[in-house]
Amino acid sequence: MKSVAEQMELIRRGVEQIVPEAELVRKLERSVATGKPLRIKYGIDPTGIDVHLGHTVPLRKLRLFQELGHQAVLILGNYTALVGDPSGRDQTRARLTQEQVEANAIDYLKQISKVIDVEKTEVVRNGDWFSCMSFLDVMRLTAQITVQRMLERDDFTKRIQSGTPISLHECLYPLMQGQDSVEICADVELGGTEQLFNLMVGRRLQEAAGQEPQVCVTSPILCGLDGVRRMGKSLNNYVGVGEPASEQFGKTMSIPDLLLCQWFTLLSDRAPEEVEVLTDLQRTPPMEAKKRLGSDIVACYHGAEAAVKARADWEKQFSRGEAPTDVEEVEVLASSLNGGQLPTFKLLVALKLAPSGNEARRLVQGGGVTIGEEQAKVSDPNQAIAVVTGLLVRAGRKWRKVRLA
Amino acid sequence: MKSVAEQMELIRRGVEQIVPEAELVRKLERSVATGKPLRIKYGIDPTGIDVHLGHTVPLRKLRLFQELGHQAVLILGNYTALVGDPSGRDQTRARLTQEQVEANAIDYLKQISKVIDVEKTEVVRNGDWFSCMSFLDVMRLTAQITVQRMLERDDFTKRIQSGTPISLHECLYPLMQGQDSVEICADVELGGTEQLFNLMVGRRLQEAAGQEPQVCVTSPILCGLDGVRRMGKSLNNYVGVGEPASEQFGKTMSIPDLLLCQWFTLLSDRAPEEVEVLTDLQRTPPMEAKKRLGSDIVACYHGAEAAVKARADWEKQFSRGEAPTDVEEVEVLASSLNGGQLPTFKLLVALKLAPSGNEARRLVQGGGVTIGEEQAKVSDPNQAIAVVTGLLVRAGRKWRKVRLA
Repeated sequence: MKSVAEQMELIRRGVEQIVPEAELVRKLERSVATGKPLRIKYGIDPTGIDVHLGHTVPLRKLRLFQELGHQAVLILGNYTALVGDPSGRDQTRARLTQEQVEANAIDYLKQISKVIDVEKTEVVRNGDWFSCMSFLDVMRLTAQITVQRMLERDDFTKRIQSGTPISLHECLYPLMQGQDSVEICADVELGGTEQLFNLMVGRRLQEAAGQEPQVCVTSPILCGLDGVRRMGKSLNNYVGVGEPASEQFGKTMSIPDLLLCQWFTLLSDRAPEEVEVLTDLQRTPPMEAKKRLGSDIVACYHGAEAAVKARADWEKQFSRGEAPTDVEEVEVLASSLNGGQLPTFKLLVALKLAPSGNEARRLVQGGGVTIGEEQAKVSDPNQAIAVVTGLLVRAGRKWRKVRLA
Repeated sequence: MKSVAEQMELIRRGVEQIVPEAELVRKLERSVATGKPLRIKYGIDPTGIDVHLGHTVPLRKLRLFQELGHQAVLILGNYTALVGDPSGRDQTRARLTQEQVEANAIDYLKQISKVIDVEKTEVVRNGDWFSCMSFLDVMRLTAQITVQRMLERDDFTKRIQSGTPISLHECLYPLMQGQDSVEICADVELGGTEQLFNLMVGRRLQEAAGQEPQVCVTSPILCGLDGVRRMGKSLNNYVGVGEPASEQFGKTMSIPDLLLCQWFTLLSDRAPEEVEVLTDLQRTPPMEAKKRLGSDIVACYHGAEAAVKARADWEKQFSRGEAPTDVEEVEVLASSLNGGQLPTFKLLVALKLAPSGNEARRLVQGGGVTIGEEQAKVSDPNQAIAVVTGLLVRAGRKWRKVRLA
């Protein structure tokens, strides 16, 4: 087991808050002295998550605790999912059926198996205790917090101010999450920074139950590809852990330079000194830094070999303007041509590089369309192109080869 | 069965609000047409109530509905009592055990048997349904109202403004009360005016459950003996239904004249025209009106004969200054006398007319102590009194006769 100082150094990396830090040090000291691992809680509601890099931030911290010899306890909130956690959201979420929730839970475990060691994780479902609770038990639970305290939560405050309804059942959520900590005797709970309130409720309930309260370790919110908003599915600014290597690599290459430091810190295992070198313009060109970052990320989800190939493919396509080796061939009917030619926008549609003529025109006007062995840029959507078998056409990152039929 | 118009005339008497009145008319019309009685709900939490005249106001309305041929449904909130209703209170109430609650329920039924016909009443305990509810059921219930709506309740608003904590479990109360209406399919719910919010929640839950919503009939709050504040045990301005006839009569005689109209309307069966005559100074002296009111009240709880006796006794004591016929004799030890005498304040203590010498002095100074056949007023607490068997002593409305031993 590593020393307390070594453990703290690794735990501190990239976290937002440790509340209270002194208690974590004491817990680690006791753990080192007795050889007894700490119980590290992380909970999610299986509401149908496409796990993306944003989700991996606290999960990677959980894996770190596993590597340090501690016991990861993953709470599948199959009961809380039936409520819908309002944290960080501005409206009441739809409720799911128990069957949907269970299917989601299984799917979620599969997705995160690339981030944490699921085999060594204690996986528990909070329906195990909540389904046994009576109305009276719920009352005892709700008696432990005041309405005023509940409304101090940032998102609730905002919803009150904006007049957005808060369903009363949403107030049960933080209490349920807190009760989970009591049930599993958590030493530490991990979560995004917007979870701090819920995590603190856990401390309170543990104290009321005569337990030593957990330490709350919160992670910052990962910025999405746009470099501004949090990574999220609805914002379409995410990299999914299940996406192909080329997609993960290509999307990573598109992030603003300013994101490099956050992404390296939260998404790779590189030490702070390395990150410093990689994000210093004088020492590493941003393009090279992004390639390293992209390789790091692909390596996590597809392995080292795939990372090398993803980088090579990307460089072939974009850095040197060459077509990749495995371009998709699409049939074009000779009868659709006019004197062996087609206007560029029609060709793009025929090759499924654009869903409509209008979209095709926009692609050309955006400067992303090149044609032929020399990949000459086309600037007029109506420009007539001589269509022959083997003609290479590129729109953005997509390539097609014509097969005349 | 009386006509709808006749029923409405009686129901309207002395009520604060009927929400919505048109719906009550429709329900009564259907009831008259089909001969099917309406289900009239009244609920109380058996939290240890000494039933006083204030409590009888909605209960008397329930009895009226019984007399009109409708079905009274009394909810004993044995489950809600475990929460504690915050209505009209400014702080969180202590919770009771289930055993205390059941003992209270039995005691309550006994007390109110003088007001409603308990035999013809459907008496139900809401623990019958709430004890079967799961956490999920509670969530479904709480999902039916928003925090914002809950905080519109007057007393909650005040507590938020004054910074007095509202325990989250108190928010469950209105929902439980509303669910009671769903469970028993209430047509009408009775309650004090401060209950309107809770009653309206019942309408909402019934509609959500596909039921015809109940009509809310609220009663005004009865003023206590002081004529200013609501009647309540803690304010010591109440008349208990279990008190002796003489106490009920005497206390009624002490109310301010201005209360006569409210008390006649809410506590007697007299028709509005009679009440008008009785509260018109030109036609009825207030003293006579109060005697009638006192007799009406005593008749409710002790019968007509007791009412006649209570009035006669009171007149003998106060109107003509005579001692009542059945004065309690108290032994005074001859050995405690000093030359056959005692200072007045010591005599009052010896006769249990005052708990302490200081209290006895205050009684004398207040001018309420008279002694002997002639009932001479004593003005000096230290005045020496010759103590003999048969000596009559009065302090306020209490009389004692000495038996020397």
